[in-house]
Parts: sequence; C-alpha cells; structure tokens
Amino acid sequence: MANVNEHYLKLKSSYLFSEIARRVREFQEAHAEARIIRLGIGDVTQPLPPTVIRALHEAVDEMARAETFRGYGPETGYDFLTALVAKHDYGSRGVSIAPDEIIVSDGSKSDSGNIQEIFAADATVALTDPVYPVYLDSNVMAGRAGTADERGRYSRVVYMPCTAENGFQPALPERPVDMVYLCFPNNPTGSVLTRPQLKRWVDWARANNAVLLFDAAYEAYIREPEIPHSIYEVEGAREVAIECRSFSKSAGFTGLRLAYTVVPKEMRGRSADGAMQSVNQLWTRRTTIKSNGAPYIVQKAAAATYTPDGQKQVRALVDFYMENARTIATGLAEAGFTVYGGRNAPYIWIRIPAGISSWDFFDRMLAEANVVGAPGGGFGPSGEGYFRLTAFGSREKTEEAVARIKSCRR
Amino acid sequence: MANVNEHYLKLKSSYLFSEIARRVREFQEAHAEARIIRLGIGDVTQPLPPTVIRALHEAVDEMARAETFRGYGPETGYDFLTALVAKHDYGSRGVSIAPDEIIVSDGSKSDSGNIQEIFAADATVALTDPVYPVYLDSNVMAGRAGTADERGRYSRVVYMPCTAENGFQPALPERPVDMVYLCFPNNPTGSVLTRPQLKRWVDWARANNAVLLFDAAYEAYIREPEIPHSIYEVEGAREVAIECRSFSKSAGFTGLRLAYTVVPKEMRGRSADGAMQSVNQLWTRRTTIKSNGAPYIVQKAAAATYTPDGQKQVRALVDFYMENARTIATGLAEAGFTVYGGRNAPYIWIRIPAGISSWDFFDRMLAEANVVGAPGGGFGPSGEGYFRLTAFGSREKTEEAVARIKSCRR
Repeated sequence: MANVNEHYLKLKSSYLFSEIARRVREFQEAHAEARIIRLGIGDVTQPLPPTVIRALHEAVDEMARAETFRGYGPETGYDFLTALVAKHDYGSRGVSIAPDEIIVSDGSKSDSGNIQEIFAADATVALTDPVYPVYLDSNVMAGRAGTADERGRYSRVVYMPCTAENGFQPALPERPVDMVYLCFPNNPTGSVLTRPQLKRWVDWARANNAVLLFDAAYEAYIREPEIPHSIYEVEGAREVAIECRSFSKSAGFTGLRLAYTVVPKEMRGRSADGAMQSVNQLWTRRTTIKSNGAPYIVQKAAAATYTPDGQKQVRALVDFYMENARTIATGLAEAGFTVYGGRNAPYIWIRIPAGISSWDFFDRMLAEANVVGAPGGGFGPSGEGYFRLTAFGSREKTEEAVARIKSCRR
Repeated sequence: MANVNEHYLKLKSSYLFSEIARRVREFQEAHAEARIIRLGIGDVTQPLPPTVIRALHEAVDEMARAETFRGYGPETGYDFLTALVAKHDYGSRGVSIAPDEIIVSDGSKSDSGNIQEIFAADATVALTDPVYPVYLDSNVMAGRAGTADERGRYSRVVYMPCTAENGFQPALPERPVDMVYLCFPNNPTGSVLTRPQLKRWVDWARANNAVLLFDAAYEAYIREPEIPHSIYEVEGAREVAIECRSFSKSAGFTGLRLAYTVVPKEMRGRSADGAMQSVNQLWTRRTTIKSNGAPYIVQKAAAATYTPDGQKQVRALVDFYMENARTIATGLAEAGFTVYGGRNAPYIWIRIPAGISSWDFFDRMLAEANVVGAPGGGFGPSGEGYFRLTAFGSREKTEEAVARIKSCRR
C-alpha cells in the first residue's frame, strides 16, 4: 500500500458542520415530531433573484445552439465577469483592481482552502481564534499546523484570540508570522474592522514581510459607512493582501457556486534563491493547471447581479437577512443573553451561561427549543463560551426560533 | 515577503494549451484573413443534448422558489446523482460500486490534479510518456517530481514511454513506484488497454503496493466490445484503483463542469505508524474540507443524461464525434500519414515526418493549412515525432481541415 499524506491524520476527527448535521439527524430520528429550525450553518434560504434566474435561463439557451454553445472557458474566469467585478466591486469604491488580478472560482471555500498551496510548506500561519475551520484545516493537511493538543490547539499555529474582552479584535502577532488569515465582517463573531484597525494590519504586514489572506465574503452586510468593504481601501494593501469574495451570501449563490480571489500584481513572495516571485502569477498558474474554470452559465448569472435590477435585488436580499439579524439580536438580548455581531454581519454571536460547554449548550438548544445553532468551541478554543446563530433563515422560522429560545429562558 | 512554494518554480514555463492559444492568437493577428480551424484542444463543439437543456431549465426554476430552492448541497454530490452513476455506469456492466464510493466534483482536471494530495509527499510517481500534462504538473507543484532536465524530464518521475514501437502500451515499472497514472482510452495517443493488459496492471499494483490512478474520461468512445470501460471490471481492482470519470466528453459538459471520482472502500494506504488508512475516507475528507460541492443545477443536468432519452442523445453525440474521428483518420492516412487512435477514442495521433520537431510541425500546419493541432512533444519527450488532432470539431470544419491537410501534402 502506498503511504498516505500523514498530515491528514492530524485533522480533528470531524468537520464542525458534519458533526452538527450528525447530531441534528440523530435528534430528529429520536424525536420525529420535533419541528427543528436550522440556524446553524450559514446557508441562505431565499430564492435566487429574478434577474439571476433570467440570466441563467438565457445562458442555458445559449448552450442549446451550436452557434452560441460554450465549452471550456478561460480557467481564471470570463472577461465579461472580471470587468464587471473590477468596475462595480472596486472601482465604485475608488479602488483600482485590474481584471487580470481577479481570479474567478467555484467558491470561497475552495479559494481559502487552496490559497495556502502557493506558499512555502514551512510558512508560519496566524489565525484568529475562533476561526472559520477551513483556514486551519487546509493548513493542517499541508503540514503547516503541527500537531494538536487535547484542547485542539496546533503546535505551529499562532493563535490570535478574539473574545468579548478584546472587542473581538485580534492583536498583532508578537512573533514572526508569514501568513495571516483575516475574515471581516467576521465569521463567526460578526465583528468588523474599522479603517484604522485594518490599516494597522496592512502596515504591520508590510513591515514584517507577511501576507494577509483577507476573506471579505460578508462585505455586503456592512451597514456602517466608515467600515471598509475591501482591504484595498487601505493604502499599501496591494503589496501584502489577497482578498476573497463570494456571490454566496450576497446574491444567494451557495447552491450555484461562484466566487473570486483578488491577487494584486504588486504582491511578491521570496524563493529560496532570494529572488522575488509574482504571487499573482503563482495563483494564476495553480488555477490554470488544476481547474477548467467555473461554469459559463453561473458566470453569466453572476454578471447579472451587476445590472441595475440585479443590484437592487441583491440589496433587497441582504436587507431581508439583516432584518432577521436584528430580530435575533433584539430577541436574544431581551431573553437576557449578551449579544454580539448582527449589525454589519449576518452572524449573531451570543455569550452562553457560565459552566456549560458550547456543545452542551448546542445540545440543550436542540432539545429544548429545537433550534440548531453552532457551538462556539467548534470554531476554536476561544470560541468556547459562545454560540452562533445565523440570520439566513426565513422570516417566519427566525421569529419562531427567537420566540422559542425566549420561552425556554423563562 | 513570505516564502513561496518552491516547487512551483520547477514547472515548465508554460502550460501546453496556453502556449497553443498564444501561438494561434499571434498567427491570427498577423493573418487576419486566415480561417483557422481548431482541432488542438479536446473541447467539444456540439450543443448540450435537449434532455440536459430541459433539466437545466427545470432546476433553474426550482432555484426561483423558496420551497424548492437549494443552497449548499452535500460536498461529495447529491444522492440522486451518485445512485444513478452506481446503477448505470457500473451496475449495468456487472460492477458493484456503492454510492458513497462515488465523489462528485466540478471536473476531472481538478480531480486528477488534486488526488495526489492524499498521498505522501515523497511518494514515487510513474507516468506514461506522452501524458496529459495535469498528472505531471500537479506532482511537480507538490514536490514529487524533482527537477527537470533540458529535455523536460523530471528527476524523480518514472517515465513509461508509449510509442508506436511498443504499441503505445506502457511497460510495468522496473523500480518501486507508489502511484501510477493511467488514462485509457488514452489522451493523447488514442490507444486502449484490453482486459488482459489491464489485468496485468491490477495484478502488478496488488503485488507491489502501488495505487493506480485510472482516468476513464473517454470510456464513452470505446467501440470494441472486449475493451473494459472501467478498471473495476478487472478482479482485485477495488483494492488498488481510483477511477476518474467525466461528463465533459460524453454529454458535452466541458463548459458546464461535472465529473466524479470512484474510491472503493477496500483501498488502504499506510501511515507512518504502519496502520492502514481508508483512502476513501481521505478523499472524502479532502472534498468535504476544501469544497462545497458542484452546483445543484449541473448535477440535475448530469442526472438527466441517465434517462432513456438522455442516453440516446449522449450516444448520438459520441457517434457524431466518432464519425469525425473516422474522417480524420481515413483522410490523413490517404494523405500519407501513419495514423493511430481514433477507433476507440476521440483523438487521432499521427506520425510526423522525420527531421521536424512537433512544435515546428504545429507551426507549419497552422501556417500552411490554418489547422490547429497539438504537438506531441507538448505531452512529453516520447510524444516528439507525433501530432494530435481531436474529433471534437463540427462536421464541416473537420472535413475542411482534412481536405486542407491533404492538399498541403500534394
């Protein structure tokens, strides 16, 4: 038998969302009558906007005729889409990003999982704690994380705790670090970075030869005008930051799959001979060699979100979910919980009572309110003591979930 | 600046198909009047079958209503699809594959590029020469290939030359090898393996603790009834073989993106402590952590290819391209070329005249016949002396390309 990738064996035994799914399935089997409300996984529930549906039908019809059929597309995305992204997502905010700095993919999960591959195998990684599990797991699998202790902390990872005590703001690493993953608006805590806070990170990365992997999947949820939507709104970021964006949470593409990653041409990495290498070229090379791009019809659907009607409909979707966020945050505060997030993000992060683990709290919520959330501890040791609810449910179920939680607390 | 993945710098300077595209673009710019016919890249040209188009429209409509909207699907593929694959692609040939041994993805290029990741970083890789570039490049990027000499041969790769002299049959490796990539019907040579030839490989892999990575993307093109369509038609293959299949070349999904990889549960790999690890679990784990699955609408489209109408329409597509293959093979033989492939595969592999490199022949065909093929040398050193044409063009252009090549040879 061939030897396997030893690093895979250092992964925790199960992926957070698989474990949630397993517990919910078991509970449902034992309690067939329970009407479970799922606010655990950050998956949207509202249908795709009409403009997107129309674009999909039109693109499908193009695939039905030889004259307009599309086979393999450009691996890094169609020009019609990257031009729209450059103009609407960046140009409109005064940020200059060239279309060939935008690399389209099937999702931010893949991008944020794969991006580590272009950096050295012995690079040091810093992660916020709690964190979206993919940043950690993909580095565990690549051997950069080392081994886990009984709390689930990996020996080679630099953890940056984000708790109520520090306002969910990661402190700058005190020891040398090569790659820092930042996700703002944050999953799972719902916190954001102001411009001065983001600038501190960019300045630190420039002074310390670090790369910032900035996940902006939730930028559409930012409400406060002074919060930057892109890390490139900060001067100097083009030299040090890669930004991931997604159509999943803005336009409801979780089941349609489309995202992109921006890698500015100023970004350089060092090779062993001391030469400087273009990071944009490395990522483009990986994309070209290991994929054949995202489906044409899905890229056409994404392009439709930039039409005036598309923009309006996407904004309505985001507004809808943010009204849910308000409902949850308000309701849970009334129920006596301390509530974070939910103002510039679709996640509500609540403090759970002392003396109970977040998985036990998960089980209790499931059993007593039949509401599924996500246990804070599943996102990292510093997530212990917290619980995440998402604003992505239907209005009716969101309201009912809040009512049930309130009545359990009485 | 962070250090980069040093192995990326060992890649050849350009990907074969990007280099072809570059040369064609430059030629077209210099000769605006030239009506270039592209038989280089193996990309289909016929529209999607009507059954697939209908399924896409229906699935898009499901995404337009909250009651039927689908968000994140199972990362490894929907049950409705894996059940159909198990029944139609395997059960119908007497092969028993369980649905959870079938892992759906966005393409065989990704699967064959990513599969190496679950094996040890120091595993030894054997490749046919010539070979589909992704098998090699993905291992170069992972550091398994070593460094290239001036002919483009990598120091740690075991090459298995496939030339007219050995009937395009790779010989069993003479030194220990952990991973062997086999693609049959073969890209680029169009050759196939008979059942006894395939059995020799399975027996060898079992006796030598090797893994066979079997790419069956072109199985739909097999015409001779005695040629196996799946490696699992050979006894014992479930212990040693991973098989990749695609909807790209059968149902015309190159622009729609869907494929799957089969990893039987009997397959084991060894970890450093000597324990046996389930390869199916490793690949499932990778898929779960690094992707969110393929789009629902595309999986519904793939499911439609298994309906009676869908099966008929896919067969008609394959028949159409195989008639092109016959046209090319016959025409080029009449023009005096020695022609291989094209009987159980959509690729025609021709011997080029002595004394000219395959890239020079590529340039000559482009200049004199305005026909784009693929230079054999682009697939590996033993591809030098050959030239590949694909059967995926339209009927009219295929016939014209053959007529032009014939007239150039006069």
